[in-house]
Amino acid sequence: MGSFLWGCVTDFFTYETTKSVVVKSWSVGIINRIVQLLIITYFVGWVFIHEKAYQVTETGIESSVMTKVKGFGHYHNRVMDVADYVFPSQGEGIFCIMTRLITTENQFQSKCVENSDKKFKCETDGNCSKYVDTVLANGVITGVCLKTSNDSQGWCEVKGWCPVENDNVKDKSVIDVEDFTIFIKNSIRFPLFDVTRGNFPSTMTSEEIKSCKYNPEQSPFCPIFRVGDILNYTGQNAADLAEKGGEIGIIIEWKCNLDQNIDYCVPKYSFTRLDAPFAKNAISKGYNFRFAKYFKTDNGTEFRTLHKVFAIRFDVMVTGNAGKFDAIPTLINLVAAFTSVGLGTVLCDIILLNFMKGAEQYKAKKFEEVSEAQIEASLAQSPASQFSLKPDIKSSYDSGAISLSNSEHPI
Amino acid sequence: MGSFLWGCVTDFFTYETTKSVVVKSWSVGIINRIVQLLIITYFVGWVFIHEKAYQVTETGIESSVMTKVKGFGHYHNRVMDVADYVFPSQGEGIFCIMTRLITTENQFQSKCVENSDKKFKCETDGNCSKYVDTVLANGVITGVCLKTSNDSQGWCEVKGWCPVENDNVKDKSVIDVEDFTIFIKNSIRFPLFDVTRGNFPSTMTSEEIKSCKYNPEQSPFCPIFRVGDILNYTGQNAADLAEKGGEIGIIIEWKCNLDQNIDYCVPKYSFTRLDAPFAKNAISKGYNFRFAKYFKTDNGTEFRTLHKVFAIRFDVMVTGNAGKFDAIPTLINLVAAFTSVGLGTVLCDIILLNFMKGAEQYKAKKFEEVSEAQIEASLAQSPASQFSLKPDIKSSYDSGAISLSNSEHPI
Amino acid sequence: MGSFLWGCVTDFFTYETTKSVVVKSWSVGIINRIVQLLIITYFVGWVFIHEKAYQVTETGIESSVMTKVKGFGHYHNRVMDVADYVFPSQGEGIFCIMTRLITTENQFQSKCVENSDKKFKCETDGNCSKYVDTVLANGVITGVCLKTSNDSQGWCEVKGWCPVENDNVKDKSVIDVEDFTIFIKNSIRFPLFDVTRGNFPSTMTSEEIKSCKYNPEQSPFCPIFRVGDILNYTGQNAADLAEKGGEIGIIIEWKCNLDQNIDYCVPKYSFTRLDAPFAKNAISKGYNFRFAKYFKTDNGTEFRTLHKVFAIRFDVMVTGNAGKFDAIPTLINLVAAFTSVGLGTVLCDIILLNFMKGAEQYKAKKFEEVSEAQIEASLAQSPASQFSLKPDIKSSYDSGAISLSNSEHPI
Repeated sequence: MGSFLWGCVTDFFTYETTKSVVVKSWSVGIINRIVQLLIITYFVGWVFIHEKAYQVTETGIESSVMTKVKGFGHYHNRVMDVADYVFPSQGEGIFCIMTRLITTENQFQSKCVENSDKKFKCETDGNCSKYVDTVLANGVITGVCLKTSNDSQGWCEVKGWCPVENDNVKDKSVIDVEDFTIFIKNSIRFPLFDVTRGNFPSTMTSEEIKSCKYNPEQSPFCPIFRVGDILNYTGQNAADLAEKGGEIGIIIEWKCNLDQNIDYCVPKYSFTRLDAPFAKNAISKGYNFRFAKYFKTDNGTEFRTLHKVFAIRFDVMVTGNAGKFDAIPTLINLVAAFTSVGLGTVLCDIILLNFMKGAEQYKAKKFEEVSEAQIEASLAQSPASQFSLKPDIKSSYDSGAISLSNSEHPI
Repeated sequence: MGSFLWGCVTDFFTYETTKSVVVKSWSVGIINRIVQLLIITYFVGWVFIHEKAYQVTETGIESSVMTKVKGFGHYHNRVMDVADYVFPSQGEGIFCIMTRLITTENQFQSKCVENSDKKFKCETDGNCSKYVDTVLANGVITGVCLKTSNDSQGWCEVKGWCPVENDNVKDKSVIDVEDFTIFIKNSIRFPLFDVTRGNFPSTMTSEEIKSCKYNPEQSPFCPIFRVGDILNYTGQNAADLAEKGGEIGIIIEWKCNLDQNIDYCVPKYSFTRLDAPFAKNAISKGYNFRFAKYFKTDNGTEFRTLHKVFAIRFDVMVTGNAGKFDAIPTLINLVAAFTSVGLGTVLCDIILLNFMKGAEQYKAKKFEEVSEAQIEASLAQSPASQFSLKPDIKSSYDSGAISLSNSEHPI
Repeated sequence: MGSFLWGCVTDFFTYETTKSVVVKSWSVGIINRIVQLLIITYFVGWVFIHEKAYQVTETGIESSVMTKVKGFGHYHNRVMDVADYVFPSQGEGIFCIMTRLITTENQFQSKCVENSDKKFKCETDGNCSKYVDTVLANGVITGVCLKTSNDSQGWCEVKGWCPVENDNVKDKSVIDVEDFTIFIKNSIRFPLFDVTRGNFPSTMTSEEIKSCKYNPEQSPFCPIFRVGDILNYTGQNAADLAEKGGEIGIIIEWKCNLDQNIDYCVPKYSFTRLDAPFAKNAISKGYNFRFAKYFKTDNGTEFRTLHKVFAIRFDVMVTGNAGKFDAIPTLINLVAAFTSVGLGTVLCDIILLNFMKGAEQYKAKKFEEVSEAQIEASLAQSPASQFSLKPDIKSSYDSGAISLSNSEHPI
């Protein structure tokens, strides 16, 4: 029993390596080395150096954006400041700067004529009743045609806030927003690596920040952006954008290689017109919305001023990823690399065993044949020796079952 | 010296391939091919075709959402339009549509009775002083019990905006929002591939967009959504939702295979009730918030109208990913596939060397034994020849050290 | 023809396995097993158990956040409630709580003195004209120096909302926000696994939720957060933060192992000061913004009250990922593991063939040499037999071409 156990232990601590055929042939040897070189070059150059396959990558960037607009707009002899033209006022990452305004003052809840669109002209109530459910009027169409005493034509009556807005104004004057500046404060964090960064260096003095303007070449880290510059970078016509409104994306991209000094982990700004995919569409060009200011008369009746605001909306979007050396991707890719180098033998085997002079001789060297017939013949000769041999051989050679768990077979 | 170098070069350009045993046996041969077929089928069918392992995937989608609501609500004989019932007004991706309203008009800063909840009924100041720090009143409880002259019971006094809000109203009338429509403009970008898409095709005419309504079968790309339809898709009771408020998610999913024509890169909409995980909770059903409109009296005193708004909040959430052919994942997965095919031999070796008739003969063919005893015996016989042989053999066979860097060993 | 096809079929169903050399040596055997053990330990312990390489991971978490603040603030003998001090009012995931306020009442559009900063003191119009384009005044500098009759010194004239804001106030009194509470309702979804979770368990009763306060140890799942506690967790000075404003991140992290019971998929809260990266900067400490309330006089002239609000901004950020068993990563990593175990032979081969006693004998056993000279000699001896053998041998051994597609070679 003890000797059996000892035999098992002896068997376990054997080492199994593949038997190899070494072919001393210049042609195959050179092809072999060239293929291996190509594979190694690919892995070193592309996978490891270019794609940084030795790093683990964090893509779930956490970001917080604070914005502040400065500048004064002139509109119809009024001066507008940031409290007037920025929506919402809290300095979020998505904000609108008003560029044009259609104001309808002193609206009260009542009934009045809907004269904002020619299609609401009417001669009889029947002309109006078909519009009862429309959402394209400025209120609920009552189905009554309102006419002044002597006229045959009139306008449909509408219930809601009166007088109705008339947005077919000829006045296209806009607020000149090009000289406005946007200050963007962006702090990000890569939770996997617990790295926190701000979008401007802490070495910048108060004076530098107050006086600088962002410029991709001269001051790429200045957090103050001139609106006119942003519109230029996106290639948009500022006057057109101001008239109809639009959406501009300010993309802050953080690509950080944390194996380097953290100071190289800096933002890169780019600017894009977000509604560009809709540029060819017939409808919905531009960007506008309506909001109201509410007032009360002395006797307590509420009335409002309706504003239809054309605005440029800025979306500050933060994207990014960070990479840092990590053992697991390195190992997995190293194994892939080593394994791939081995793939070179597949190609060389094909050449050696099919296209080389003396291919059959090489085959005879590489392959050893065992057929069932041979085995059966040998079993028939010595049926007894088979059983006598069995324990002996079993202890001599590693069994397949052990091989599986050891995996020293050529997987 | 020159011949030594030449020897090294000759050695380097050799080709090493494993020596193989070819077993001509139907049973093992068929098992071998079936295992290989299964592995190949798995890789081709699942990994490559279904999981698209040959593609690199971009999950960091950049998205911009603009929304616009249309429709008129009737509430207590008033007509409400979008400027009245949508918060915030700028058309963001997250917005609320008001469905019910509790209005408390003409609140001034002063002291008054807190009569919104029975628990603030009092007989002595002592009944009130325990509530001094509560945040569940409509103001700061002063600790005084206010009684009318002849009554024994009164209400606690509160400091703040007076009169206090009473939200225990019986009036459950709601604004009918089902016929409101939401227009959603969503433009996305996959920065890795620099692909930009909008959520409706540029071939849609202005007429089509104005007249269509989203429907998953008939018009899956129409950007106009009827609120009633959205509530239906989520399986919610519209009346219940309007009374208590709720949160609805409009999920826009972009799954793009950029190896195909870009026109197949289209959004897929789905709708869900976001507060569903809290449906079983005792508290905090629905969605409501308070806001105030501020006014001034003639003498400059500020007063306000407080609104408790029950609303349906819509969150437009954009998710997605895009895949495109890339050499690196293809290569890594191909190597994994090839390597896995090789794993079939492990299974076949187990069968061949343990369960086949003539297993011992197969073992004798596959394994060649070298023991330390043999080596020592051969060293003892010809101690001189060992050294004489050494340089000779060294130049004949590839050394293990070179093998490591070449990796032509069965890794 | 039939027999040729039969020969092909017979050839196809052969099984090829590598011929191995079994080295019965204690030293190499032990090294071999130790190396294999280390590799297996690494894969089982780190890759599979710690890194959960058998799971597919979903990082695209969908999240919806609703917040509600409660509490009363005292400010200059006024009581402020949530409608007064929270911006925006709708209960979004990003919201501000006002802590300090500089109010400029009754601003009308006109011209007046800009006396908010000493630099706008002037003696002549020339002192002012240099500021015409500045955005740092409270309006547009007209270039006129306004002096009272007898004074030599005056202030530059400004056009805009008058009187101008003076934010150099000595009054630093703040609203005490520490006792305010924030209720956070967060529902998330992992779209890949279609798993939806809420941030507090549905077993919590209404009473529990109303009475609890979040505490990382005692009540980690209570959704009510005391502002003072949050500020404590971030290690910030509450008084300083209230005076200057700041940005606080409330991070909700969902790390879910969906192979476990879904009840273990719970949020983890952490708190951080978001503007920390800018703490050392000279400028832009804190957080403030301006907004205006608009009023109308009896004769219809609009005027406003400007508020400069210092606030603590809270960003509720939701991150997370979920993992679940999946066949593909498991398979790829298992193959990597098996393959890596095979890498142990590379090290053992180096030791065996270079540093062991009898290394040359081992080499002679492992490597079989074939040189071009031998092959040519054998071809010269029997040029006829070569061709006669060819079809015979071809049918005996697997050709390299078939080997490629089968890949039973040691890849």
